[in-house]
Amino acid sequence: MKSYKELSREELEQLLRQLGKAYEDAKGRGLKLDMSRGKPSVSQLDMGMDFMDILNSSSDFQTEAGLDTRNYGLMDGIPEAKELMAQMMGVPSAEQVIVCGNASLTVMYDLISRSMTHGVMGNTPWCKQDRVKFLCPAPGYDRHFAITQHFGIEMITVPMTENGPDMDMVEKLVESDACVKGIWCVPKYSNPQGYSYSDETVRRFAALKPAAADFRIYWDNAYAIHHLYEDKQDEILDILSECEKAGNPDIVYEISSTSKVTFAGGGISALAASKANLDDVRSSLTVQTIGFDKINQLRHVRYFKDINGLKAHMRKHAAIIRPKFEAVLQVLEKELDGLGIAEWTNPKGGYFISFECMEGCAKKIVAKCKEAGVVLTGAGATYPYGEDPDDSNIRLAPTFPTPEELAEAADLFVLCVKLVSVETLLEERAMVEKCAC
Amino acid sequence: MKSYKELSREELEQLLRQLGKAYEDAKGRGLKLDMSRGKPSVSQLDMGMDFMDILNSSSDFQTEAGLDTRNYGLMDGIPEAKELMAQMMGVPSAEQVIVCGNASLTVMYDLISRSMTHGVMGNTPWCKQDRVKFLCPAPGYDRHFAITQHFGIEMITVPMTENGPDMDMVEKLVESDACVKGIWCVPKYSNPQGYSYSDETVRRFAALKPAAADFRIYWDNAYAIHHLYEDKQDEILDILSECEKAGNPDIVYEISSTSKVTFAGGGISALAASKANLDDVRSSLTVQTIGFDKINQLRHVRYFKDINGLKAHMRKHAAIIRPKFEAVLQVLEKELDGLGIAEWTNPKGGYFISFECMEGCAKKIVAKCKEAGVVLTGAGATYPYGEDPDDSNIRLAPTFPTPEELAEAADLFVLCVKLVSVETLLEERAMVEKCAC
Repeated sequence: MKSYKELSREELEQLLRQLGKAYEDAKGRGLKLDMSRGKPSVSQLDMGMDFMDILNSSSDFQTEAGLDTRNYGLMDGIPEAKELMAQMMGVPSAEQVIVCGNASLTVMYDLISRSMTHGVMGNTPWCKQDRVKFLCPAPGYDRHFAITQHFGIEMITVPMTENGPDMDMVEKLVESDACVKGIWCVPKYSNPQGYSYSDETVRRFAALKPAAADFRIYWDNAYAIHHLYEDKQDEILDILSECEKAGNPDIVYEISSTSKVTFAGGGISALAASKANLDDVRSSLTVQTIGFDKINQLRHVRYFKDINGLKAHMRKHAAIIRPKFEAVLQVLEKELDGLGIAEWTNPKGGYFISFECMEGCAKKIVAKCKEAGVVLTGAGATYPYGEDPDDSNIRLAPTFPTPEELAEAADLFVLCVKLVSVETLLEERAMVEKCAC
Repeated sequence: MKSYKELSREELEQLLRQLGKAYEDAKGRGLKLDMSRGKPSVSQLDMGMDFMDILNSSSDFQTEAGLDTRNYGLMDGIPEAKELMAQMMGVPSAEQVIVCGNASLTVMYDLISRSMTHGVMGNTPWCKQDRVKFLCPAPGYDRHFAITQHFGIEMITVPMTENGPDMDMVEKLVESDACVKGIWCVPKYSNPQGYSYSDETVRRFAALKPAAADFRIYWDNAYAIHHLYEDKQDEILDILSECEKAGNPDIVYEISSTSKVTFAGGGISALAASKANLDDVRSSLTVQTIGFDKINQLRHVRYFKDINGLKAHMRKHAAIIRPKFEAVLQVLEKELDGLGIAEWTNPKGGYFISFECMEGCAKKIVAKCKEAGVVLTGAGATYPYGEDPDDSNIRLAPTFPTPEELAEAADLFVLCVKLVSVETLLEERAMVEKCAC
């Protein structure tokens, strides 16, 4: 296809009329679709229903060590669940794991909140420090940025690359500024690009020499086993082992959950870190709770048994999700490839596709889609403070709609991308001509 | 029986020898019993096992409004669970309720933590204020005091009476000191006495005119439906309604959970408060979580249906617990009544008996019990900072052991009480005689 930028004004104007008419037709179809959040679909939830049968009134509720999961106690998780989550996260030992409640987001919120009020491993609480800054690789996960913003933490955007965050910038900022206390990372199948950090990136993270003793890497390994393909899978180095090798055992908190393995909201979450870090967390946790839901921890252990059970289950998820990703990607390729107005990622796992349109077009595209009944993640959401400096990134979340809905949604999306792009190109031409006068 | 205080030195010495021998015999029995925590017993847990069957792979997981509890969303709880918890707490409307995760302790921790970092309804965060004080009716619940201590909040002990905290003192402190930001209350079947607040106490709470705009009553209604008897039950006024009537709608947070209804650790918790308070909490909660475990919320709703289902279930718990309370109380009455060395409460609900021994004896009694294999709640635990000024209060938790174990534990306990009391009386006599020389 011919690049839109090579079209004459007349050609663009003709295209605009065609696209405008198509858009009006689309609006008339009364769509009502949601591609905004990384939500599992009904088929995925239905697929996992036998999980609900694994514990019932005739089950034994004891751990292997004979502890009753129905009662209080075992504040930091049952040993079997620690082992399962260690395997899922690729962490060498269950000793490095605490198993928590249903949401890894809450684990991360608590880490930040605890650092504000009690400090990290004996350091001054952040609320008593003048300035606290976080590095935010972007495009990134909006709920990470919401936590740091909520606590009044200054956020510094770090550009993302296919291999992870710009490590030159990360090293410079972390090693020179003692106000920099953390960095948000989604190291595998990143939200929203689906990028996985290269071995070099992981090793450079592990070798950081932070100016602040209470600096931590917030390693949100949300998509550790969320592959889309059997034959094409990303693997990343285990950050905990790399940090230990680099003499930096305490520099990282790793977080994960089974929210997108079993049920969103009905999963279990985990925190993996050095013993010193976990002991520090436990000293607050013991005040915060008598114990998380150990019955649900046991349900996970009995159902999956080990990493092989998890992997087998994730293959079933992939079989449902993969065609959806492919459907969207096919439409993007067919309709936008070669037009010079957009780029997008082609992830091998995770829950999202990251879409880059022309500068200044993202908000307009999202608005046009919404007007015609297709809800996308708000433009800007993938950047700190919800402000995308180029207004060009859009996160596509293809998992929730049915394949049929998705085809309709993708068709509308590319139509809106084209329409807004042509409008923008015409405005630019008009501006250039005006200046030339 | 003759009061120990009326005995001669010789009689006391003879008694000491008898008790000493009995204690040595008891030690030889190799007991290993735990009366330390308010834990449900295995019989109680076994009794509720059909709860585990109510949701299975063939169940419908939709709320009445058609929302899928297996997926993300409904951050502040499913409407049906709000209704159930409102009924359990005796709160007029489900609109006044947020349903949270498995632990009311965490709800309370979060309330305090949030007040530290973000303040209460727009007021200055506590971490930016010079001093923050809490009133702690004592004897009280050790885990309440642990939260306030953890956040460096100054704790002021307020004496407890059969009708609730000393309200003259509460009013004076709350209304004169703007550093006083809260008071911990267990208004019904209090921990550890089993006292329930009188209507006058509740109304005086509701009518407080705090010096601090961000003062709140932390109303931990943990034992709202935890009666021991069918014919003798305490009822308390609904604090939310009373506060509203008194023109003080925002002055209280009420907290409860089903940890001692279904499973300890596998229950659901709730926060009830005014709309303004709940909106304030929601503004943080929406950053903290995408949603709590709604499947477990639905499981509760489907199992209990309404307050009648809850009440019927609690009658079964009472049938198991009541004989245990009675067994302990019988031993106390039979062995200690009239000796003038102890007093204890006779609760109609809740999980504890509060025991008052002679001043300076509690730690010794608890240590003697431990030495002979019976673990009690640590002496002092029922007071702020773990320091009972009189060293006289011991919390007895009779629910966990079997009736047979309990009989043995109670026998040992009264033996230790007598032994330590006689030792103490003899020391006092010796001191008096020494002074008289």
